[in-house]
Amino acid sequence: MPTDPVALTAELIRCPSVTPEEGGALTLLAERLAAAGFECHRADRGGVANLFARWGARDAARRFGFNGHTDVVPVGDAGAWSVPPFGAERRDGQLWGRGATDMKSGVAAFAAAAIDFVTETPPEDGAVILAITGDEEGPAVDGTAALLDWMAAQGESMSVCLVGEPTSRERLGDTVKIGRRGSLSAFFTVTGRQGHSAYPHRARNPLPALVRLMDRLASARLDEGTEHFDPSTLAVVTIDTGNPATNVIPAQGRATVNIRFNDRHTGESLTRWLESEAAEVAAAFGVEIAIEVKRSGEAFLTPPGALSELVTRAVEAETGVRPELSTSGGTSDARFVKDHCAVVEFGLTGRTMHQVDEHVPEAEVTALKAIYRRILRDYFG
Amino acid sequence: MPTDPVALTAELIRCPSVTPEEGGALTLLAERLAAAGFECHRADRGGVANLFARWGARDAARRFGFNGHTDVVPVGDAGAWSVPPFGAERRDGQLWGRGATDMKSGVAAFAAAAIDFVTETPPEDGAVILAITGDEEGPAVDGTAALLDWMAAQGESMSVCLVGEPTSRERLGDTVKIGRRGSLSAFFTVTGRQGHSAYPHRARNPLPALVRLMDRLASARLDEGTEHFDPSTLAVVTIDTGNPATNVIPAQGRATVNIRFNDRHTGESLTRWLESEAAEVAAAFGVEIAIEVKRSGEAFLTPPGALSELVTRAVEAETGVRPELSTSGGTSDARFVKDHCAVVEFGLTGRTMHQVDEHVPEAEVTALKAIYRRILRDYFG
Repeated sequence: MPTDPVALTAELIRCPSVTPEEGGALTLLAERLAAAGFECHRADRGGVANLFARWGARDAARRFGFNGHTDVVPVGDAGAWSVPPFGAERRDGQLWGRGATDMKSGVAAFAAAAIDFVTETPPEDGAVILAITGDEEGPAVDGTAALLDWMAAQGESMSVCLVGEPTSRERLGDTVKIGRRGSLSAFFTVTGRQGHSAYPHRARNPLPALVRLMDRLASARLDEGTEHFDPSTLAVVTIDTGNPATNVIPAQGRATVNIRFNDRHTGESLTRWLESEAAEVAAAFGVEIAIEVKRSGEAFLTPPGALSELVTRAVEAETGVRPELSTSGGTSDARFVKDHCAVVEFGLTGRTMHQVDEHVPEAEVTALKAIYRRILRDYFG
Repeated sequence: MPTDPVALTAELIRCPSVTPEEGGALTLLAERLAAAGFECHRADRGGVANLFARWGARDAARRFGFNGHTDVVPVGDAGAWSVPPFGAERRDGQLWGRGATDMKSGVAAFAAAAIDFVTETPPEDGAVILAITGDEEGPAVDGTAALLDWMAAQGESMSVCLVGEPTSRERLGDTVKIGRRGSLSAFFTVTGRQGHSAYPHRARNPLPALVRLMDRLASARLDEGTEHFDPSTLAVVTIDTGNPATNVIPAQGRATVNIRFNDRHTGESLTRWLESEAAEVAAAFGVEIAIEVKRSGEAFLTPPGALSELVTRAVEAETGVRPELSTSGGTSDARFVKDHCAVVEFGLTGRTMHQVDEHVPEAEVTALKAIYRRILRDYFG
């Protein structure tokens, strides 16, 4: 009997796995996968639960991997929900609850597809791997990164990997992600000399330099976009001084910018650019400008090829929709996987993710399982 | 026997008259002045003590006025003082304590000069008026302004007025103030639309508009100065957002500027300029910019003439220094007096004013009294 991905999603929703709580979700999955012949290992680290499951031989010629997470963001205002957030109610063709779209449905869909595939049409010299973390919504330090470390230490690896995050925009199938922009934040501190507003020539106001620098950065056109990427963007996210006195020129001002960048840049090249802009402004205004840069991830791309074509064809066959290959959006755990093997992301629409009354159409979960199953068949076929 | 201005300053320092406390200072002055034949009235308002004292007839042909204050700024870090702040210690030719320069010495000098003058050489058809407030360092709403209101209601007026604030820069006598720049503060709020840093095109970041506007204002040259005034200045004193999240584009940003302006401008003309600059930037960036303007005082000038010449000649005769006629510096109560009669300001150097271990050379206080006395003699002579 085929595995029902909607029922499995409902079971997972009933596990209250708010990051970093495991909540029973990975234990449940390990049981189901083990029953289908998967070898399961927990690769927990730093209080985060992670599940590694493999069907087939570790050294099989072709090893198809799925990656996802069972942790969910907090409920938020529980009183604002019209259903119990961990109740997994089914109503009007929808399944309701925290994680319904992000991404217990995705995990249930690929687990169900994998179980049915290895049970009904076991591949020769092939392996199916599921690498599922309990911390993608949190710091993500001991999540997928820890799983990949553990796999490397055990001699485990994937030939290719599909991350099952919600990627579809308007309807299931319209978007496959083949990369992501990088992200960095830069924290600027401009230091001058305090003084009285009535005698500005005796002080050295840091704020004119700060606004000039921020104006230059905000006005800069980082690039025009590249073949697979939108133009890079820079957002000034905060500027702060905290001076309550109108008759005082402050000694310091601070500002933070966040850059989302494509493959024309690296964290290193952007850091050098920011330092050079700051140095020019500092010299022009006679102030000191210190920068601290925090890089959250480099831009990466799995160039269109065999893997994206495999996924694209399966999506089109099941839905009639030809997906767009995209690199838009925020970060995901694909940023860790890409250092190990080719990776693409494909999953549901995410309209209600992170919101009150999160829910998913049951038919979409069933369709997603069918797509994943077809991907496995075509990959090993 | 002549009145000793140093001893009187010391007595005033021993009155702990931190704004708005009267501390006994005005009571002491009223006693001394009344003993010399002055008619004294308290013109208290809103919890602030004010003293009006007149020698001579209310309707005398010539009525010379002195204005000053006995309130002082707080001690600050009391442990950092090397003397008791209200102890009035005399050591090494200096008198020490809070208010030693700003401006119990100035008040003592003009009170002593006035007492000796009317006692030894009483003028015919002349009046000497002392208008002394207990709130110049604070809000100044119920201080000299209240005294002038009270005087107008009583039919009291001054023909000319000398404010005894510390005006000398390097040595006693080098500077007479004949006007002051105006001051206003403008509070800007730029409103856009909040959003995610990864999708800046879906948000409307208010900060690029805010930094462009501040850059324009900080870079603007308001004027080149005028005959008696330095160039007007604009200081950006604070910019604040308070957004702790690097992945969030904020909905609002705030900034404050303070303008010190000469007689080429008015609070009204500058407000119109700020509104016009803000409107241009708001239109260019598609954001809303609200401005709140708080005017602290208009620029004013007592054009060089009889009064400034009277003071200048007396200063030069007593000190050998030819004073410069200046309009620099912050606001003073002269901004209220100028609406009633010609006003100039002359007093000590103010090196240690508002600081720990405030002190004044005793010889300077004695010299200041002599200058004030000569001014009275020449005015009525």
